[in-house]
Amino acid sequence: MKRLTAHIIAIGSELLHGGRIDSNSVGIAEVLAQSGIEVKQKVAVGDHELDICTAVLSSATQADVIVTTGGLGSTLDDCTREAVAAACGRTLVMRTQALRMVQAHLKTRNRVLTPVMTRQAFMPSRAFILENPVGTAPGFSLKVGKAQLFVLPGVPREALAMAQVHIPLYFAKKYRRERRGLWSHSLNTVGISETEVQGHVMPLIKRYPSMQFSFLASTSGVKVTVSCWRVQELNKSDSKNIRPFPEGEGAVRNIRAALAPWLYSEGEERMEEVVGKLLASRSLTLAVAESCTGGLVAHRLTEVPGSSIYVDRGIVSYSNRAKQQLLGVRSLTLKQYGAVSLQVAHAMAKGIRKRSRVDVGLSLTGIAGPSGGSLEKPVGMVCMAIDGPYGTEARQFQFWGNRSEIKFRSSQAGLDFVRRYLLDRGGKKGDPAHG
Amino acid sequence: MKRLTAHIIAIGSELLHGGRIDSNSVGIAEVLAQSGIEVKQKVAVGDHELDICTAVLSSATQADVIVTTGGLGSTLDDCTREAVAAACGRTLVMRTQALRMVQAHLKTRNRVLTPVMTRQAFMPSRAFILENPVGTAPGFSLKVGKAQLFVLPGVPREALAMAQVHIPLYFAKKYRRERRGLWSHSLNTVGISETEVQGHVMPLIKRYPSMQFSFLASTSGVKVTVSCWRVQELNKSDSKNIRPFPEGEGAVRNIRAALAPWLYSEGEERMEEVVGKLLASRSLTLAVAESCTGGLVAHRLTEVPGSSIYVDRGIVSYSNRAKQQLLGVRSLTLKQYGAVSLQVAHAMAKGIRKRSRVDVGLSLTGIAGPSGGSLEKPVGMVCMAIDGPYGTEARQFQFWGNRSEIKFRSSQAGLDFVRRYLLDRGGKKGDPAHG
Repeated sequence: MKRLTAHIIAIGSELLHGGRIDSNSVGIAEVLAQSGIEVKQKVAVGDHELDICTAVLSSATQADVIVTTGGLGSTLDDCTREAVAAACGRTLVMRTQALRMVQAHLKTRNRVLTPVMTRQAFMPSRAFILENPVGTAPGFSLKVGKAQLFVLPGVPREALAMAQVHIPLYFAKKYRRERRGLWSHSLNTVGISETEVQGHVMPLIKRYPSMQFSFLASTSGVKVTVSCWRVQELNKSDSKNIRPFPEGEGAVRNIRAALAPWLYSEGEERMEEVVGKLLASRSLTLAVAESCTGGLVAHRLTEVPGSSIYVDRGIVSYSNRAKQQLLGVRSLTLKQYGAVSLQVAHAMAKGIRKRSRVDVGLSLTGIAGPSGGSLEKPVGMVCMAIDGPYGTEARQFQFWGNRSEIKFRSSQAGLDFVRRYLLDRGGKKGDPAHG
Repeated sequence: MKRLTAHIIAIGSELLHGGRIDSNSVGIAEVLAQSGIEVKQKVAVGDHELDICTAVLSSATQADVIVTTGGLGSTLDDCTREAVAAACGRTLVMRTQALRMVQAHLKTRNRVLTPVMTRQAFMPSRAFILENPVGTAPGFSLKVGKAQLFVLPGVPREALAMAQVHIPLYFAKKYRRERRGLWSHSLNTVGISETEVQGHVMPLIKRYPSMQFSFLASTSGVKVTVSCWRVQELNKSDSKNIRPFPEGEGAVRNIRAALAPWLYSEGEERMEEVVGKLLASRSLTLAVAESCTGGLVAHRLTEVPGSSIYVDRGIVSYSNRAKQQLLGVRSLTLKQYGAVSLQVAHAMAKGIRKRSRVDVGLSLTGIAGPSGGSLEKPVGMVCMAIDGPYGTEARQFQFWGNRSEIKFRSSQAGLDFVRRYLLDRGGKKGDPAHG
């Protein structure tokens, strides 16, 4: 059977001129792929009725599925409802069910319905209402020509939550006897360049010709994704479970082996979650002494729910005075080696571990730039140290990029340093056998 | 004269499924706007000849100008040349002038021409060659129907450099006697909802019918942008200078007055820069004691180059033990009021100011969620305090969103708290006359 195709239309004038980039479509494309629908085009248009209407009609002649995001709010520039009604030749009507949804959501936030907000309950006649589990504006779905159109709000977490609920549900009802989908698996590496990753994976690209391999470099590292389109016929017995896919799993196993020294997670798992799990599983506590990263490592660690169990504290010792007072770094060490040195990193890690009485102390000190560099210690030079139950380690890195990129790359390398320290040294708390 | 319209087509399969976002179009849209051309649509399509061809033909019926970016490299998946040739009904021919450009660029990088690279010298017949000042692949320009098409490579800095050179040049030749362009100005507010902002600005929307107003809500607050398309006739004397625009400046003055209590910056200036400038101009130093924000406030402050002048330190006192040890919060205060309370915020601010001997101490303590909330102290409740030369202040907030959003909104409100403290209390360091 022919694979279904989709267009995603992001609506908002700020996407054309405001310097803002549409990122909703990334998550929506993933949801579509999981339902076996291939995105063929992404479009961004301004908040103009005619432009939206033209885009919808143009996509309706090319794609089986259209998803729009944006322009469903209650402000005057929001005109997606009107544009879609025009595109389908229907009138806008107030839907009491939708109005009740708006009221119910406002109530959870202790707000009352104002006249202008009732706009959010208007929809093209006979449209199917899509509930918004996390925000005010409901969406809706209807046919435009032969295409099935899903109209979602523009707030990123609302658009994603609604896509995740409503799109799979619609296609699960439509295709009862089979499951279609893009099978894909990602592996996340750090400390290796995109070219080197490609070099390691190249033999596998030839060995698995039916698989697609893609490489994505960012300040977090290089992500390798292997994917393949599948159609499975369903028996009653496996209507809930996804059947194994030996070829894909074989490819993943081989990539894993080829990239093992740099692999820190798979799928969407972030470095701070990986480190958090390692600490939690060993009942270890952590404290961080940051200079150049300015709090970013602590911020990332505390993005993870439940991190208060293993994160005791962070110290952003930006001034030398703070390094002396809070971490006990000696003024002689600072003078002799400079604030950015393995010796000072070492003293910071030992200081924070001792003073906060945690299991693991991590320190980072470096030159984030754009100024402050020298021939000997250029911008991007960062020293890190760990003091913990398995002994002390210090490392020096040279990063590139602007201030913000150097800060992020440093935080990623620092967290990876903790990960490697815990894994390489194995053992449990109080068992420094490998130290 | 009718304003010219443009579509931008970004080409690359990774833009549809690889999680990568097209950012080239942001810079290209700016270049077009400066030439008086309004971008009406942005499109992303995969590296498939038919899809690219369809997108170009569809845009040619709607826009005066089309700019494509991507798919001009020498690898096998690059097929923009073929697709464009098909769309214009021309054949691809090898252009010796283009080949010489490719060779010349390779020479600067000490590389030699390989057979596969000659692909980059093929173009639709009679196309105008666009030199690439920073990379290998030249671009080209030609008519498709009534639209003028510019075909640029996908490497971001190459696409931008070529757009900046070739697009203004083409339209400067076409429109010798006038300058067209988009005038726009943004104002950034915090602590007020999008609906309320719109209510305040509404009378101005009516007073300035030729201006466009747009509103953009994010975790940073609400951004208001006012913009207007202008056509200036040029004398020889002002061919270089942009003339003032009294109507636009009047509108901005009025928005500024209407939103004064919530306005923290204009244009692209971020809150951490505003606070940094205020601190630097008054020669004040700052230290931050964070609990729920987990280092985010310190991280944002230190994103600003030169922040080491006024940021002395940050303390992420995630555990109660850290609050007692590092900030001198009394265990009785913690027991009596709980870690999330105005009293503890107060003690944290006083503690960090006193112990680090800075001018201003800021503290934040709250419940970032998703767990840890109660009826009395729900998720999103955050207490903040400032201790400084103009006295002590404490405030309580109730934020909403997920953990990450609550952290960011808290950091934004905390920095705004410092901004207001410094501005409201006026005066200079050591002059607590208004305290």
